[in-house]
Amino acid sequence: MTKIRLGIAGLGRIGKIHLDNLLQIPNVEVVGATDPDSASLQYAVDKGIAYTNTDFEAMVNMVPLDAVVICSPTDTHADYVAFCAKAGKHIFCEKPLDLSLNRIKDVLDVVQKHKVKLMLGFNRRFDKEFRKVHELVKNGAVGNPHLVKITSRDPGAPPVGYIKKSGGLFLDMTIHDFDMARYVVEKEVAEVYAKGAVLVDPAIGEVGDIDTAVVTLTYTDGTMAVIDNSREASYGYDQRVEVFGSKGMVQSNNNFHDSHKLYNKEGIHAALPLHFFLERYQEAYKTEMQDFIKGLEIGTPMPVDGNDGLQSLKIGLAALQSLKHNRPVKISEVEQSAPMV
Amino acid sequence: MTKIRLGIAGLGRIGKIHLDNLLQIPNVEVVGATDPDSASLQYAVDKGIAYTNTDFEAMVNMVPLDAVVICSPTDTHADYVAFCAKAGKHIFCEKPLDLSLNRIKDVLDVVQKHKVKLMLGFNRRFDKEFRKVHELVKNGAVGNPHLVKITSRDPGAPPVGYIKKSGGLFLDMTIHDFDMARYVVEKEVAEVYAKGAVLVDPAIGEVGDIDTAVVTLTYTDGTMAVIDNSREASYGYDQRVEVFGSKGMVQSNNNFHDSHKLYNKEGIHAALPLHFFLERYQEAYKTEMQDFIKGLEIGTPMPVDGNDGLQSLKIGLAALQSLKHNRPVKISEVEQSAPMV
Amino acid sequence: MTKIRLGIAGLGRIGKIHLDNLLQIPNVEVVGATDPDSASLQYAVDKGIAYTNTDFEAMVNMVPLDAVVICSPTDTHADYVAFCAKAGKHIFCEKPLDLSLNRIKDVLDVVQKHKVKLMLGFNRRFDKEFRKVHELVKNGAVGNPHLVKITSRDPGAPPVGYIKKSGGLFLDMTIHDFDMARYVVEKEVAEVYAKGAVLVDPAIGEVGDIDTAVVTLTYTDGTMAVIDNSREASYGYDQRVEVFGSKGMVQSNNNFHDSHKLYNKEGIHAALPLHFFLERYQEAYKTEMQDFIKGLEIGTPMPVDGNDGLQSLKIGLAALQSLKHNRPVKISEVEQSAPMV
Amino acid sequence: MTKIRLGIAGLGRIGKIHLDNLLQIPNVEVVGATDPDSASLQYAVDKGIAYTNTDFEAMVNMVPLDAVVICSPTDTHADYVAFCAKAGKHIFCEKPLDLSLNRIKDVLDVVQKHKVKLMLGFNRRFDKEFRKVHELVKNGAVGNPHLVKITSRDPGAPPVGYIKKSGGLFLDMTIHDFDMARYVVEKEVAEVYAKGAVLVDPAIGEVGDIDTAVVTLTYTDGTMAVIDNSREASYGYDQRVEVFGSKGMVQSNNNFHDSHKLYNKEGIHAALPLHFFLERYQEAYKTEMQDFIKGLEIGTPMPVDGNDGLQSLKIGLAALQSLKHNRPVKISEVEQSAPMV
Repeated sequence: MTKIRLGIAGLGRIGKIHLDNLLQIPNVEVVGATDPDSASLQYAVDKGIAYTNTDFEAMVNMVPLDAVVICSPTDTHADYVAFCAKAGKHIFCEKPLDLSLNRIKDVLDVVQKHKVKLMLGFNRRFDKEFRKVHELVKNGAVGNPHLVKITSRDPGAPPVGYIKKSGGLFLDMTIHDFDMARYVVEKEVAEVYAKGAVLVDPAIGEVGDIDTAVVTLTYTDGTMAVIDNSREASYGYDQRVEVFGSKGMVQSNNNFHDSHKLYNKEGIHAALPLHFFLERYQEAYKTEMQDFIKGLEIGTPMPVDGNDGLQSLKIGLAALQSLKHNRPVKISEVEQSAPMV
Repeated sequence: MTKIRLGIAGLGRIGKIHLDNLLQIPNVEVVGATDPDSASLQYAVDKGIAYTNTDFEAMVNMVPLDAVVICSPTDTHADYVAFCAKAGKHIFCEKPLDLSLNRIKDVLDVVQKHKVKLMLGFNRRFDKEFRKVHELVKNGAVGNPHLVKITSRDPGAPPVGYIKKSGGLFLDMTIHDFDMARYVVEKEVAEVYAKGAVLVDPAIGEVGDIDTAVVTLTYTDGTMAVIDNSREASYGYDQRVEVFGSKGMVQSNNNFHDSHKLYNKEGIHAALPLHFFLERYQEAYKTEMQDFIKGLEIGTPMPVDGNDGLQSLKIGLAALQSLKHNRPVKISEVEQSAPMV
Repeated sequence: MTKIRLGIAGLGRIGKIHLDNLLQIPNVEVVGATDPDSASLQYAVDKGIAYTNTDFEAMVNMVPLDAVVICSPTDTHADYVAFCAKAGKHIFCEKPLDLSLNRIKDVLDVVQKHKVKLMLGFNRRFDKEFRKVHELVKNGAVGNPHLVKITSRDPGAPPVGYIKKSGGLFLDMTIHDFDMARYVVEKEVAEVYAKGAVLVDPAIGEVGDIDTAVVTLTYTDGTMAVIDNSREASYGYDQRVEVFGSKGMVQSNNNFHDSHKLYNKEGIHAALPLHFFLERYQEAYKTEMQDFIKGLEIGTPMPVDGNDGLQSLKIGLAALQSLKHNRPVKISEVEQSAPMV
Repeated sequence: MTKIRLGIAGLGRIGKIHLDNLLQIPNVEVVGATDPDSASLQYAVDKGIAYTNTDFEAMVNMVPLDAVVICSPTDTHADYVAFCAKAGKHIFCEKPLDLSLNRIKDVLDVVQKHKVKLMLGFNRRFDKEFRKVHELVKNGAVGNPHLVKITSRDPGAPPVGYIKKSGGLFLDMTIHDFDMARYVVEKEVAEVYAKGAVLVDPAIGEVGDIDTAVVTLTYTDGTMAVIDNSREASYGYDQRVEVFGSKGMVQSNNNFHDSHKLYNKEGIHAALPLHFFLERYQEAYKTEMQDFIKGLEIGTPMPVDGNDGLQSLKIGLAALQSLKHNRPVKISEVEQSAPMV
């Protein structure tokens, strides 16, 4: 069996994780890596990657590749995906594909035209906790889902400089929860009402963003989801989901450092949730790459595709409109106007 | 020490509970009971209550009473409270005081003018779980509260005939959660956005009500609460609250039949939550009466007063408007219009 | 239906609890109370008990009684039970019946001869947690039971003066666990190995007792139970049982002050177990009296009878021998020698 | 920094796990592997190990090695360890070193004489759950430890053929718990009382072994531990520890497939513990190898050494004697007689 030859673009934090995980998968050969920073490229060299270059297009043109894993900054995603598609390479791309709906639609057209596979990096779908909820819901364990509740809180806000360019809370952070809301019940969202506030750090407000939010989603069948977000949970990364339905309810919980319980005269004490996404989703990142490779090998549909990226962005854009105008916004409004952020 | 002499109006399910609990309190003498149904009065006779009558006003006029406990149907509350106040009797009244804001304001004026004490029956404030959350929040255990999450689901819908006259989900059921949202963080609500659906029983929709809802509250300081409701949780009464703040998060859980865990090859199995409010709030009802009596004896302010009834009704009316028009509604809008339901 | 007329002997802490609970049971009339201390008798007077006396025999002789509840000191139990039996009164007696096997056998003969019912006060059998374990085991939920694990730790040691006269840890405290070991799996014990130490308070050792113990029981079918005891658990009353069998395992947990979980940067914190037996077994004491009355009314066998008292004492005596000689002791050895403590 | 050159002996299930984990450690080079079965050696060849041989001594003699990892059958351990020691190689050896105390002593003498490092494979010491308990106990979180409770149940019995040669339950399975009992409180055991039965499979009894046991250990300071074992827990691998002390109590729990809770009208349902040691201790095996390499690099004492192997075997031999004679057996008795199994 010939190995799948991969190139990787971008060797930041997440790029390194993907590279390490890809190197553990039997039938994969990572043959090239690009990054604008030559110091980052050394990481790939140390891992035995034969080809490294600061020029992404050069790698795609010159190295024989089956697929490319794109972990470069968000503003390169659309261009890189389109370039790979035209070159006939399959693609894994970190989310979001872009922050403009029209640009995403154009890129997805290119992907479709060139018949390459595209998988989007919504890593939480590969977490065993959320997968279990999804599986139980799919198997009818809760009957018809009526309500979805998603708690998603980060342990600390990123630097304001990052936030400024991130697209804001809804496109940077909540977008994972929008995807989760679609994933766990396999329903599409019809309407969004978003409420937000600056409660963690005034500096976040000064760059026009919020740090705390409650978002109500209405699915096309009239059932509802609610998401609550905070940029700063003092006790660590809080990632829970609950699906309530006609026959029952299922919850997933956080993952904790360990299971100990200490009883003393002050009370009972237990360990905190794992600190942040790198710890919580360590296994999910592995599964994500394995499933991407499996999709390439077996030819099954990708578990997260371009449309998933498109839909979550629509919800995010609707949330932004909703927050701005303090009124519920229909997804169809966003589709018609395809507003720029 | 002379005993506190009480009359009780209404011997339905909740009236019987209050009567039984009052009979356990040392310094209390229940001297009269009224109910339109003479069969119900027999319950009081069997408990040794000396005076029973189908006529409420007769009891208040003729029996020497310090206070009256009103558990009669909602549409009698305002009249009975006003009548007691004018007669100089202190009052415990089941919620809601009325479904009209103007009527409530009039009645509260009468209460104030006659300087009697009035306590409203928001029983959940006396539940040890919610009290603990309230106490921890008050003591600063979570820092500044940013988000409140309330889950409130009944094990089954009441008869449609009841629903029809109940004021609907928001005034009949969610009103407890509106009070809880104010109680746990001691903040007032400024704006309401309510989303609802008929997912449990179409017959509920046919009488113009909903059975499933997500309500977002914005407090006057910009922080938020979210409530989710269902009329039918297959697994029993689901009553949880979570308060997230700058320094931590506190959750209360349901109360369960017992603590057993059964491990077998199918999984781990545990007991369900207590079935409904009579089981879950059994102790809370006792504490409620004890605190009412304590308020009378010591002269401290009542733990739930007329204003609490007024505020929760305002939120409920705003929720109704919000649902009808699918837009956020400010409490100030409701105050100005004082709309009839 | 004529009421069951009860007398109560002994108005110490547990006597008062039983009296209060009896006064709540519909078909019961407590007509007499005795206690050597006239101040204690005032408690009964205040509760409306018509007859009070310092002389137990006088009450049994002079007041028309159906049954007697004996809560007087241990050294009176055997005499009082025999006296009641001869007078044809049914009996509830706090454990232990006596600390001498021969004395117990004599008394049980008297009880049997006079055909009165006798119930022993092993209150934990009426706790909903242990009842659930018992029920699940009985229903086959764990298959054939192989192992029983009982954790039983008090929040603090009683005064050394009490310990001196108590019969020691095994007869005063572990005896409840010996009964539990028999109750949850409905098996008889064949052999005991007890290991103990003085780790809490040297003064306990000075009066010849231990404060910490591990006791292994072997049932007649070769399956096993293990009990661990401490007189002082800093975190409160610790009362758990686990039954492991061929098809599964069931555990009961402690009861806690409330269900809150507080998350902050130090960890997750929860409430302690209820402090001691009065709190933990508050409901069990009610059920115990209700079941005693039910046994009298319906004529069903008493849920805990004289033989239960006898068997648990045998195990206790074997444990004492085992500890003394550091070897396993068979129950049959104790039966043959019927040693005095 | 020069890499540490390792050889590995034995490529059965555990040998493959160690090999895979070693290949992930940066500063390590696995240069040789031996196994009597050439098919097993292919596994090493596929992983890129340069030297493979069926002859262990040949590898030690001919390949330049810093250390050897011994995962071959138990009856080779003593010989291999002695041979490595004489060749000046550091050693990691799976437990047990041998089933004869005298043989172990001889081998440890050789190890000491040749000044090589020896680490024993008590993998559970590297599990994060038990490490946390150990750390909390060491830091005084429970005060002075009074009681240790270890639950250790396998999901199913090994083939009777294996059991026959295993040394029996105490030397094959409980030996891990004996080590755990020493590890969590850092105390030595003075006396053992073991009680066992054949409850899972009569065939196990027919080869002279037991499948269910309760073992009481008394430490040299008079405090106690109790271990319960079963060869077959229907619900999966059950590995818990509890340490109770003067100031508190700490428990560790099993690790579960996931954290979901499913509520439906039958109850609340959760996932089972991970099935067996390969799943539960997957991370522990990694940590074990990392700590072995760290010990070689930094020169710190090995976290589990030859004496640990010796002590746990003594306890196991005492347990065997205790079971046989149904009496407590002192460790000193075993030391004097150094009985063969």
